[in-house]
Amino acid sequence: MKDVQNSHDDRRIPLQKVGIKGVQYPITVMDRQNKSQHTTAKVNMYVDLPHNYKGTHMSRFVEILNEHHGRVSVLEMDDILKAMMSKFDCKTAHLEIRFPYFIEKAAPVSGALSLMDYDCWLLASLDRSSSGDVFDMVIGVGVPVTMVCPCSKEISDRGAHNQRSTITIQVRSTALVWFEELIEIAENAASSPVYTLLKRDDEKAVTEAAYDRPLFAEDAARNVSEKLREDNRIIWYRVESENQESIHNHNAYAMAESD
Amino acid sequence: MKDVQNSHDDRRIPLQKVGIKGVQYPITVMDRQNKSQHTTAKVNMYVDLPHNYKGTHMSRFVEILNEHHGRVSVLEMDDILKAMMSKFDCKTAHLEIRFPYFIEKAAPVSGALSLMDYDCWLLASLDRSSSGDVFDMVIGVGVPVTMVCPCSKEISDRGAHNQRSTITIQVRSTALVWFEELIEIAENAASSPVYTLLKRDDEKAVTEAAYDRPLFAEDAARNVSEKLREDNRIIWYRVESENQESIHNHNAYAMAESD
Amino acid sequence: MKDVQNSHDDRRIPLQKVGIKGVQYPITVMDRQNKSQHTTAKVNMYVDLPHNYKGTHMSRFVEILNEHHGRVSVLEMDDILKAMMSKFDCKTAHLEIRFPYFIEKAAPVSGALSLMDYDCWLLASLDRSSSGDVFDMVIGVGVPVTMVCPCSKEISDRGAHNQRSTITIQVRSTALVWFEELIEIAENAASSPVYTLLKRDDEKAVTEAAYDRPLFAEDAARNVSEKLREDNRIIWYRVESENQESIHNHNAYAMAESD
Amino acid sequence: MKDVQNSHDDRRIPLQKVGIKGVQYPITVMDRQNKSQHTTAKVNMYVDLPHNYKGTHMSRFVEILNEHHGRVSVLEMDDILKAMMSKFDCKTAHLEIRFPYFIEKAAPVSGALSLMDYDCWLLASLDRSSSGDVFDMVIGVGVPVTMVCPCSKEISDRGAHNQRSTITIQVRSTALVWFEELIEIAENAASSPVYTLLKRDDEKAVTEAAYDRPLFAEDAARNVSEKLREDNRIIWYRVESENQESIHNHNAYAMAESD
Repeated sequence: MKDVQNSHDDRRIPLQKVGIKGVQYPITVMDRQNKSQHTTAKVNMYVDLPHNYKGTHMSRFVEILNEHHGRVSVLEMDDILKAMMSKFDCKTAHLEIRFPYFIEKAAPVSGALSLMDYDCWLLASLDRSSSGDVFDMVIGVGVPVTMVCPCSKEISDRGAHNQRSTITIQVRSTALVWFEELIEIAENAASSPVYTLLKRDDEKAVTEAAYDRPLFAEDAARNVSEKLREDNRIIWYRVESENQESIHNHNAYAMAESD
Repeated sequence: MKDVQNSHDDRRIPLQKVGIKGVQYPITVMDRQNKSQHTTAKVNMYVDLPHNYKGTHMSRFVEILNEHHGRVSVLEMDDILKAMMSKFDCKTAHLEIRFPYFIEKAAPVSGALSLMDYDCWLLASLDRSSSGDVFDMVIGVGVPVTMVCPCSKEISDRGAHNQRSTITIQVRSTALVWFEELIEIAENAASSPVYTLLKRDDEKAVTEAAYDRPLFAEDAARNVSEKLREDNRIIWYRVESENQESIHNHNAYAMAESD
Repeated sequence: MKDVQNSHDDRRIPLQKVGIKGVQYPITVMDRQNKSQHTTAKVNMYVDLPHNYKGTHMSRFVEILNEHHGRVSVLEMDDILKAMMSKFDCKTAHLEIRFPYFIEKAAPVSGALSLMDYDCWLLASLDRSSSGDVFDMVIGVGVPVTMVCPCSKEISDRGAHNQRSTITIQVRSTALVWFEELIEIAENAASSPVYTLLKRDDEKAVTEAAYDRPLFAEDAARNVSEKLREDNRIIWYRVESENQESIHNHNAYAMAESD
Repeated sequence: MKDVQNSHDDRRIPLQKVGIKGVQYPITVMDRQNKSQHTTAKVNMYVDLPHNYKGTHMSRFVEILNEHHGRVSVLEMDDILKAMMSKFDCKTAHLEIRFPYFIEKAAPVSGALSLMDYDCWLLASLDRSSSGDVFDMVIGVGVPVTMVCPCSKEISDRGAHNQRSTITIQVRSTALVWFEELIEIAENAASSPVYTLLKRDDEKAVTEAAYDRPLFAEDAARNVSEKLREDNRIIWYRVESENQESIHNHNAYAMAESD
């Protein structure tokens, strides 16, 4: 049977990325508290395609994914990328995994436990250079929080508009950084964390704590930046903070990136 | 050229709806203030398919849509449905149109003008019965508003959590009901309307007004219901109110439907 | 601390549904092959609210969900609904759960194994009437398939346009119906199932099998209907078939519902 | 009334972007055929925030947008950015506009006219450097097309799987490039364009033409790259090609970027 993908292309146009996008897959992720947790992910896998090949063999990506049984840790990300490098004639390999991640959280007063979901992702790549393979990984979290508007509080005789917001942190690091660490930084950078379960005492505490700590989207981005700057493991970061403004039908946005 | 769609099907299974879904189309909608406005819509068009036909001719839906040049009013909805009835061998025809609708709105104190966008839709159908054609139309609006939590305000020494919410109203009526009327009902049923443009004076006014009128999702649904019950033109309604809770990562929801 | 939700409302407007929407939660679902599987769900929980109460206690929904630890089977759906009925002063309770469901599938020629993801959901409710509680459940699946156009094949000298489509089946039944059964019915009703992993031999087989079985969206809806009509357990069904037409930027749609 | 945004921040963290995101707005876009067309857009507007300011004045973005009445051309993009530069104490300003764009298209055989919708966007920025302001603009289009798989055609005795795909082109140029030009390049790079309205003769022609020109996602990306490389106006491009594979539930992807 003819291997069409392997046929020659003479246009001299290399492709930076070819691969599969949006594969849904059950995975097991490292969990600081419980060692590991089950969740479900959307997976993208790409390699570069040298100019002389017509196409890539898309089924091989799925085979590699299957061989690793959906286990996802920094170590396994590297293994999967290495498998991609050896199965394809390529110089770079990319693996992107995005999933909901769950952490048991105690309500601030009652201590009532419930699971909070966070949007998490890993964007890893391996790059073959003359001096050896370079592994790169971005760890990302999207953290829902409450934000109380400082301007609204200051100028109003009573109340202050507030809203659900998302703080997004992406980092590159020289040593393991847990999702839990980034989530904690994001939650501490906001007017208040949000919770899945709050009893009446908790709702009072969260309302007052948030009202006592009004912050702009700009403040949240800077609060996170400040923490990440101090962390010796972090070599690059991008922070985004997006308020689903309760008084508008559009969002307020702030972004800070390390130099 | 063979007409495959027209071939016979002998399984005796009529289909309630066959047609096209998700056609994006520029339309002109009736506007109470400016007579008409330009916007863009997603359009669905269906007819029923008698048991004995294998398929329908999907291109005819687009031809009918083209002949009406994207003009959308109650009258034209009826015309389009009649054209569908005459072009297809069918007993019912459905036309669904969803679009952003823009209204110029003055900020409460400064009077600063800006455009607010509302999600609007029309779900129309024509049904051929022995006693003649029956035209049915549901008018729908999705209205972003601010909601301040009464429980949070009551139990807290200061502040109150609030959030962007959506009030959805769908009605059937015996006489013309403007989108503007339903939007006004929704905005009056909430802690406060939202605005695209608010100067500092406006922000103070909106914050205080909302704080002075704390309402649950349940209250908003009832406030709207009360208004619709009193309106003699309205023969059916469904109201939904959904708060993007600022202290949770999930929503609070309430729904009321007329008997 | 005042219980605001419990205060009296005198407008005499009962609400059909109040509750929480969009809680993300890790769940364990019954699996015909492996007894159970881990996945993640979006959960909605509602009860009706009698006219005389101002609001409902949203945190109780989460507490009930937590007590059942995310185990989802027909039995547990009923248990959760009963817990809702006993914790709230209500006459109806609704529980809606939607999740990706994974099935290991062998490629048609090579037998290569891989996981296919299906969109699945359970819409359950409990209704208190004078003659006792009535449990109702809709089981739903969204199944990706390939559809080859019979008209395009018939009129063209070579080739035939085809596309990814989704067949959606929703049923009510008197006895357990597995997701696997509905998925199998959907896949058999299409030109061909789709697969996550296909080697070259498989791709040839799938291409030819699909080309040999051209079907309209209408045919798929009828093929499924025929199977469901014959099944004594099924007391209600709705089937939808939606082709992401490869020659258009809109979809072709067909729907059949039992009488 | 205190200007909280203007208060001093002493953490020495400048923010690269602060502003508003997701404002829905009716706009008028330049149209090669009809001079201009009405459509609706999602608008983002950002400026950088010097380290010493606590926040930005979000309402000013909306005021600037209003002053320009939603007219969008290269000239007006520049005007809006200049207005942002003069209203904010900033060194960079960003304006992002995304909208459906409609082009009347004739079916290949019947010549039947209909409107095709394309996803279009403009990402513009102005950057104040010592040597003057630098205007930068990325023009983007997302073009739906049909793609027939060359491998499937080659190895199968009959038929070939095909699917709706999206070719995304983004360019920077030294002179005006029309959306129509990029759309034409994308449509010519695929197995076939797609159409909103096709009569039976057209469907035959499209099916056969596509079958006669099987192409991988990789080929489409290269076909577009080839055209853009030859165009002296184009100084940067990124091309993406994504097939909604009809035999899989995931997509095939290829990307090429200029050096």
